Amino acid sequence: MNFEQLFYPKSIAIIGASSREKTVGNDVVKNLVQQGYQGAILPINPKINELYGIKVYSDISVIDQEIDLVIVAIPAAFVAQNLKIAATKGAKAVAVISAGFKEVGQIKLEQELKQVCQENDMTLVGPNCLGVINPEIKMNASFAHILPEFGSIAFVSQSGALCTAVLDYAQGLSMGFSKFLSIGNKADINELKLIKYLLADDKTKVILIYSEDLQDAPGFITLLQEHNRGNNPKPVIILKSGRTEAGASAIASHTGSLAGGDAAYQALFKQAGMIRANSIDELFNYALVFNRNQLQPVKNAAIITNAGGPGVLTTDELTANGLELAKLSQESTQKLAAFLPPAASVKNPVDVLGDAQADRYNYALEVLLADPNVDAIELVLTPQSMTEIVATAQAVITAKQNTSKPIVVSFMGDKTVKPGIELMNQAKVATTVFPEAGAKGLTALSKFVSWTQQKTEKPLHYDDVDQARVKQIFAEAKKVGQTSFPEAEALEILKAYNFPLLFSQVAKNASQASDIAQQIGGKLAMKIVSPDILHKSDVGGVMLGIEPKDVSTKYAEMMATVAANKPEAKLEGVLLMEMAPSDGLEVVLGVNKAPGLGSMIMVGLGGIYVEIIKDVNFAFAPVSHQEASEMINSLKTVALFDGARGELPRDKEKIIECIGRLSQLITDFPEIKELDINPLLALSQGKGAKVLDARVVIE
Amino acid sequence: MNFEQLFYPKSIAIIGASSREKTVGNDVVKNLVQQGYQGAILPINPKINELYGIKVYSDISVIDQEIDLVIVAIPAAFVAQNLKIAATKGAKAVAVISAGFKEVGQIKLEQELKQVCQENDMTLVGPNCLGVINPEIKMNASFAHILPEFGSIAFVSQSGALCTAVLDYAQGLSMGFSKFLSIGNKADINELKLIKYLLADDKTKVILIYSEDLQDAPGFITLLQEHNRGNNPKPVIILKSGRTEAGASAIASHTGSLAGGDAAYQALFKQAGMIRANSIDELFNYALVFNRNQLQPVKNAAIITNAGGPGVLTTDELTANGLELAKLSQESTQKLAAFLPPAASVKNPVDVLGDAQADRYNYALEVLLADPNVDAIELVLTPQSMTEIVATAQAVITAKQNTSKPIVVSFMGDKTVKPGIELMNQAKVATTVFPEAGAKGLTALSKFVSWTQQKTEKPLHYDDVDQARVKQIFAEAKKVGQTSFPEAEALEILKAYNFPLLFSQVAKNASQASDIAQQIGGKLAMKIVSPDILHKSDVGGVMLGIEPKDVSTKYAEMMATVAANKPEAKLEGVLLMEMAPSDGLEVVLGVNKAPGLGSMIMVGLGGIYVEIIKDVNFAFAPVSHQEASEMINSLKTVALFDGARGELPRDKEKIIECIGRLSQLITDFPEIKELDINPLLALSQGKGAKVLDARVVIE
Repeated sequence: MNFEQLFYPKSIAIIGASSREKTVGNDVVKNLVQQGYQGAILPINPKINELYGIKVYSDISVIDQEIDLVIVAIPAAFVAQNLKIAATKGAKAVAVISAGFKEVGQIKLEQELKQVCQENDMTLVGPNCLGVINPEIKMNASFAHILPEFGSIAFVSQSGALCTAVLDYAQGLSMGFSKFLSIGNKADINELKLIKYLLADDKTKVILIYSEDLQDAPGFITLLQEHNRGNNPKPVIILKSGRTEAGASAIASHTGSLAGGDAAYQALFKQAGMIRANSIDELFNYALVFNRNQLQPVKNAAIITNAGGPGVLTTDELTANGLELAKLSQESTQKLAAFLPPAASVKNPVDVLGDAQADRYNYALEVLLADPNVDAIELVLTPQSMTEIVATAQAVITAKQNTSKPIVVSFMGDKTVKPGIELMNQAKVATTVFPEAGAKGLTALSKFVSWTQQKTEKPLHYDDVDQARVKQIFAEAKKVGQTSFPEAEALEILKAYNFPLLFSQVAKNASQASDIAQQIGGKLAMKIVSPDILHKSDVGGVMLGIEPKDVSTKYAEMMATVAANKPEAKLEGVLLMEMAPSDGLEVVLGVNKAPGLGSMIMVGLGGIYVEIIKDVNFAFAPVSHQEASEMINSLKTVALFDGARGELPRDKEKIIECIGRLSQLITDFPEIKELDINPLLALSQGKGAKVLDARVVIE
Repeated sequence: MNFEQLFYPKSIAIIGASSREKTVGNDVVKNLVQQGYQGAILPINPKINELYGIKVYSDISVIDQEIDLVIVAIPAAFVAQNLKIAATKGAKAVAVISAGFKEVGQIKLEQELKQVCQENDMTLVGPNCLGVINPEIKMNASFAHILPEFGSIAFVSQSGALCTAVLDYAQGLSMGFSKFLSIGNKADINELKLIKYLLADDKTKVILIYSEDLQDAPGFITLLQEHNRGNNPKPVIILKSGRTEAGASAIASHTGSLAGGDAAYQALFKQAGMIRANSIDELFNYALVFNRNQLQPVKNAAIITNAGGPGVLTTDELTANGLELAKLSQESTQKLAAFLPPAASVKNPVDVLGDAQADRYNYALEVLLADPNVDAIELVLTPQSMTEIVATAQAVITAKQNTSKPIVVSFMGDKTVKPGIELMNQAKVATTVFPEAGAKGLTALSKFVSWTQQKTEKPLHYDDVDQARVKQIFAEAKKVGQTSFPEAEALEILKAYNFPLLFSQVAKNASQASDIAQQIGGKLAMKIVSPDILHKSDVGGVMLGIEPKDVSTKYAEMMATVAANKPEAKLEGVLLMEMAPSDGLEVVLGVNKAPGLGSMIMVGLGGIYVEIIKDVNFAFAPVSHQEASEMINSLKTVALFDGARGELPRDKEKIIECIGRLSQLITDFPEIKELDINPLLALSQGKGAKVLDARVVIE
C-alpha cells in the first residue's frame, strides 16, 4: 500500500476541479490552496485556466510533473479511464470522492475502478468518500472546510458526512488529528488496512473509527492482539452503527452491504481489545480520555469535588463499571485534614466544599497524586461564588504535567466555566462537560490497559485429529451435492477430530458383544445392524440400559425377536453403545458464520438457558485456551459449572478442549456453515464430557 | 404548606445579610436587588445600615412590616431563635441556607429548627440549601448568580452545588424555569410535598428532580398514578444518585441519610411512572424533549437526515428502546421522490443528501408531518458546504409551530451549527448535540405517554382473610419477644390470609383417616401426632406417598410401630397432608423493607433462577392486579410460566392472587420486616398453586 503517497504527497492532482463555489471540485482546491499545503497543487478542468491563483490543467495527460496523489470529483462513469492516465504520470494513491458506485447498485463501475487501481499499483480511498486530510502537512484534500489542528488522533470514517460534524465539534475541544479520512465504499482501503498502517505510524497515538460493516474478524484479532499486547499499544475506539435490526437494514439500504449481527461485532471487539463507543458523544469522550492520558493500569480512582451530589454521581459511574474508589492512605487523609476546612470530606470522594478556591483543589491534587493508593483522579467543579475557574484550571494543568496518572476533569456548566475548560483543552487535559462521561472514559481506559497486559496465547491445537478423514467425508458429499450431515454422519466428523463421543462398536456375535460390553463397563444400549431394517425399534431392534453381564443373553434375544419380526432381513450383528450419563450438565456448542467477518463459535448451557435466557457467548475461531475459558467464565450461568447448589463442579477443562477442537475443525474447514453440538454433556470434574448429538452443514 | 409565601412572597427578610462580597449573605441580597425582584427586600445585619442601596435592619424585631419569606444565612446555632422572632412578624416560609445541621451530625439542632417551624406554621426549605428562585417574579432568593429565564420546568435538587452548574448550563439551552430550588437536608419540605404542589401549579409543565434519597414510595405512587393518569399529566424526571454501593455510601457520608437499594428505586419509578435519567446530561436532554413537545402517543418515528451514517445511529437508538421506524405512506414516498434528487432515500430514514439546502429539509418535514404513519420526527443535520444552517433551523421552527407531533433535532457540530441551534432553542425546539440523545428522549416520552394511558387499578383486596387471627398471632408473639416465625407458624399466618396451602388435617382414628384421605383425593403424607414425640421419623412416625385406599392399613401400621418404638408416648392420632405436586414450577415470593421507602414484594422463579440468574422483580405494596401481573410478565424467565419447551402453561392468575394476598397482608401489618414464601409451586393453568414453605420476621 502506498500510504506515503496518500498521506505525504509531494503533488496532488484534482480531477474535476471546479470554479463553481460550494461544489466538491471547488472546495478541494480551495482547501489545499488556502489552508497551507506546500506541495504542488494540480487542478484539472478543460474549461478554466486558473483557480485560486493556481494554474489549471486541461487534462491529466498534459501535466508535466510526477503526480503522487489524485483526488477525483467527476461523474462515476469517467473515473476509471482518467485514472489510467494518472497512472502514467506516476500516481500511486487516489481518493475517489465521486459517488455513483456500489452504493447505488453500480457494482460493475466499482469493480472496474478497483481493477484499474490494482493493475497500476494505486492505493485507492473510496469511492464515495470525503477525501483525505493530513494536518501535519496542512493537507486538506477533502471537501470539508475545516483543517483540524495537528495532533495524535487518527480518525477513519465510513461515513463522509459524519466527518464534517466531527471536524466542527473537535475544534471546540482543541482536539488534534494525525490523519483524518473517510473511506466510503472501501473498494480497496478499509479499516483493517488503515489500522495496520496507523499502528506503525509514530504520529498516531489513538485510532478512532466510525464503521457500518467490517470484514475479516480474525485479521483484526490477530493484528491487534499482537500489536496492542506489545510495547506500544494504541487504543482503537470504534463506533459501530447498525446494532439493531432496523439500523442494519438502514445500512444495507444506503451502502449496499450486509453486516453481520451485533453479537458478532461484540465478540470481535472483545477478542481484539477494541473499545466500543455507543454514541458519537462517547466516541469523543473516549478519544479525549485515551489521547490525553498515559496508558497505565488504573484500579483505584479518587474524586476531588466542590459539590457532594456530583461527587456521588461520579462515584456511581466509576464503580458501576468496575473501578474501585481508592482508599486514601492515612498520610493523605491527615494532610487533607490539616489543610481543608473541618466540614470538608477528607475521604474519597474528597469534598473541598462549595467555597473552595484554586488552592484547595491544588492541594488536594498534590496529595492524591502522591498517594500510592490512587491510580487516577477525576476532578469535578461546580461554579460557585468563590470558585476560581481559571486558576483552578491552571492548577489542574500544572498537576497534569507532573504526573503520569490519568486525570479527567469536569467543570460543570457552560459560559461561566468555559474559560477554564478551554484552557485545559488547549493544554490537552481530558475534559467532559459532565463527570459521568469522564468516569466512563476512565473505566474504559482501565479495561483496555488490563487487556493489553494479558498474554496472547496461541490458538488451541490438537495433533491427534484426522483431517484427511473429514476432507474425504466432505469430498464425497460434495460429489453428490450433499451439504447436510445429521446425527451419525456429524458424529463421524467429530470423531475424526477426537471429540469425546459415547463409545460404540459393532459386535457380530454374542461373544464379541460380551467383550465390548466389558470394555464399556457401564450400562449400554444395543441396536440391530441390518441393511434391510430402517425402523429398528419397530422390530425389537433397540434395547436400552442393558447391564454388561446380561449382554450375551440380550444379544440372542434380540436376534431371535428381530428374525421373527422380519424373517427376510439380513442381520449383521448389533451396535453396542455406552449409555449417556444421567447427571451431565447440558452444554451447547455451535458454529455460526457472520457475513464478511468469519466463523464464530457459540457456547451456552443447553435447554432452557439457551432458549429462554439466551445466555450464550461467541468468539471467532481460532480461539486460544484463554479465550475459550473466558467464553465459559463470562456466561451468566457459569456458577452451574462451578458447582452451584451443592452439585459437583463440572469438567470445564474438557469443555474448553471441545471448544478448541471445534475451533481447529472450522479453521481447517471454512466450508462449515453451521455446526451444532447439542447437547454436549459436561460431567463432573475429571470425568470429561460427552457429545450426544450433533449436526453439520457445509456450503 | 405555605407555598404561596415561599414562591410569591411580597417581602423577603434576609437574616445574615453581609457586606462582604462572595459570601452567601451578600449574594442573596445582591441577587434580589439587582435581578429585578419587586417585593420588599429586608436585609438584617446589626453592623451595617445599607446594602446595594437598600436599608439594612439591625434585627428582625425592628422590622416594621409583615414578612412573607425569610432567608437565613447565619451560623446554625442561632437559626432557631431568630426564626421564633420572624414568626412574630408573620413569616410563613423560610429557607435556611446555613449548613451545620444533620449533615455534620447536629441532629438536635435540626430537630429544634424543625420544631420551631412547625409550631409557628412556617414552611421550611433546607437547612443546608441554596435558596429559592422564582423566575416568574424575578426572585432569586439564593446565592446562585444566575436568574434563569421564566419557563415551565420546575427543578428541585437535593444538592445545592449542583444547582449553579444546572443554571449555567441551562442558560446555554435557553431553558426556562417555573420554580427552582434546592431542598438540602429536607427537614420539612421534600420531593413528595413539592411534587404535590407542582402538579397543581399551572406554571409548571415538567418536573426535574435530583435526589439522593426519597421517603414514602407509596406516597409517590399513589399521587402520581392518580394525577398523571388524568387529564394533565406532568412528567417527573429524576436523577437519583447512589445507584451503586459506593455511591450510596458516599451519600451516607455527606448527608447522613441511609438510602434504600437501587432495586427499590427502580420499582418505585416504574410504579409511579417517573422517568429516570441516568446522568446529568440525560436529565437535560429529557427535560428538553419533554418540555418542548406535546405529550402524545409515539410509536412510529421518522428520521430526516443529510447523512447516512448519523441516520443509522439514530435508527439504532430509536429502535433499541422500543420505537418503530415509521413505514411511510405511499403518498409520502411518492411526494418525496418527486421533489428530492434520485440518489436521495425516500424511505425512512429519509436521506435528503449532503448537498441538501433548507428547501429539502422543509419539504421532507411537511410531507412527513402530514403522514398519518408518522408520530414523531427526529431531524439530523451535518454541516456540509451547501448546508443552510439558519434557514434550516427556521424551517424546523415553522414546522414545529404547525404540528403537535413531537420533534427532536440534532445539528451536529459546534461553532458552524451553533447559530441554528441557538435559534431553535430560543424558539423552544428540542435540540441535542448528537442525535442519539434526542432519540433516547423521544423513546422516554413515548414510554411515559403510554404509561399515562394505562388505567390505574385498585390494589388487590380479598375479603376472605382473617386479619384478627394474624393480629392475635403477632400480639402473642410480641408478648414473649418472639419476632421470627418459621415454617409451621408462618404457614398459620398465610392460612389466615387464605393462601393456597397443602391441605392437612388431623385424624384421631383409622376411619377418620380414611375420610380425610378421600377428601384429599391424591397421594398423601402421614405424620404421627403426639405431644411426647419430637423426632417423628426416628420412631417411624412419618410416611410419604400413601395411596388413599391404603390409609386405614397404614394408620394401624404407624400406630403399632410408634407404640413399639416409644411405648410411653401418648398418641393422639395422625396428621394427614396432601403430597406436594411433583410437576410444579417453583416460584419465590418475598417481602423486603426498603429503608424510608416502604415494603416491597419480590417475585422470581425459585432455585437456580433466583440464586444464579437473579431474575426477580420488585413492587411496593399495595399492588394492583395490573402491577402484580407486570411483575411476572417482566421476568426474563416468564416464558416458563407461559409453557415453554412443550410444558403446560402455569396458573399465572393464582400467582397474581398470591402476590395480591401478600400485598394485603403486609399493608395490614407493616411490622412484617421479612417474609419468604419459598417455594410457591405454580401448577398448570386452572390448577392453582401451592405454598410449600414460608418464614416470617416482624420488627
